[in-house]
Amino acid sequence: MNVILASTSTLYGGNYLEYLKDELISLFAGLDEIIFIPFARPGGISHEEYTNTARGFFSRLNISVKGLHEFDDPVSAIHTAKGFFTGGGNTFLLVKTLHDLGLMAHLSENIKSGKPYLGCSAGSNIGGLNMKTTNDMPIVYPSSFECMGLVPFNINPHYLDPIPELKHNGETRETRIMEFLTQNNIRVIGLREGSWIRISGDKITTEGSENTRIFEGGKAPYEYQPGSSLL
Amino acid sequence: MNVILASTSTLYGGNYLEYLKDELISLFAGLDEIIFIPFARPGGISHEEYTNTARGFFSRLNISVKGLHEFDDPVSAIHTAKGFFTGGGNTFLLVKTLHDLGLMAHLSENIKSGKPYLGCSAGSNIGGLNMKTTNDMPIVYPSSFECMGLVPFNINPHYLDPIPELKHNGETRETRIMEFLTQNNIRVIGLREGSWIRISGDKITTEGSENTRIFEGGKAPYEYQPGSSLL
Repeated sequence: MNVILASTSTLYGGNYLEYLKDELISLFAGLDEIIFIPFARPGGISHEEYTNTARGFFSRLNISVKGLHEFDDPVSAIHTAKGFFTGGGNTFLLVKTLHDLGLMAHLSENIKSGKPYLGCSAGSNIGGLNMKTTNDMPIVYPSSFECMGLVPFNINPHYLDPIPELKHNGETRETRIMEFLTQNNIRVIGLREGSWIRISGDKITTEGSENTRIFEGGKAPYEYQPGSSLL
Repeated sequence: MNVILASTSTLYGGNYLEYLKDELISLFAGLDEIIFIPFARPGGISHEEYTNTARGFFSRLNISVKGLHEFDDPVSAIHTAKGFFTGGGNTFLLVKTLHDLGLMAHLSENIKSGKPYLGCSAGSNIGGLNMKTTNDMPIVYPSSFECMGLVPFNINPHYLDPIPELKHNGETRETRIMEFLTQNNIRVIGLREGSWIRISGDKITTEGSENTRIFEGGKAPYEYQPGSSLL
């Protein structure tokens, strides 16, 4: 496989996908067109406007972008595509739409056969085994929480360390993930903003500017430096 | 109805339920026993330990507490109960357990017929129309997101204002609720910690120390002072 699952599309103070530019030139090397999957975006901007945002960035890499919503037959579009990018937004809406349209398995099959895939935030959640470690609000009810399983674990994008000065009684991210582990025997990769997971052939590594926090049942959480294997 | 739906069980720096004590004396006036519903708590502490926490507080009000998990026939226990308290934790786990055991409708029926009910956090979420405005992580897959509808709107407990200094790209609470409104025609009550909703007869008001933030489709969010009607 040839995959990037990124914590976020945009770093604080940065431009859209800018921090990933060199990696994306490598990921999509030799491609002149990819399909953008805009389904995570719950309004405010339309699928077309959201696709235009991706289009703007990829034009600088001489890669044209088609939105999956533009096709009458999205299953066929996935099978004829050269590569994919799923943008962030609300994971419940993204997973519901992919299941409702019967696309999750087709997308997974095409990525597992080697087509390059970029996911950001919600688009990274669907690379995990299931979406049960998303941070998003359950604004719609998906027919299933199951995802593509490009990696043998779950992802928590936008991983956020506890904020000591916050006088608030809501659970920290770490507490939430530890609660997940009481109900599921699945490793969770907490991806801080600035980090991404790289699948290249049979290797899976954590990359980027930040350490990555790993959660497993029966262990204290621990950290991996960029470049570490996640297998 | 005779109901309190509280944002949180515990204020920062305070003790369990302490800030609600006077209200709870009024809510449960004349009762010597209530049933505690501990199902939101995903491990770390058992149902029995969690029930003991509630028991410790209510003993000071001369009210004894039985955990719903103690009964072989929880449906019958709900129908013979005098009042209820559902504690916080993970809303997905709470709603899944209530639906799996077939208890949601029985609980709702008993509260709507006048038995006093206290919900905190996840226990307040289930008083809304559905759980689609919870902050919790979807660690389990409930058979439905539908809840009791004690109030004709949804609740967002632990409502948190944006933190301007946070250099993080995750969505603010307000953004998440606005995304909910793109998919659902349901009013959302953002309950800051220190606030609660009081149903007393045919009145529904917001109470406590904080203003309450209201979200409706097609309107800018607005605020209500304590004592305002939510009808």
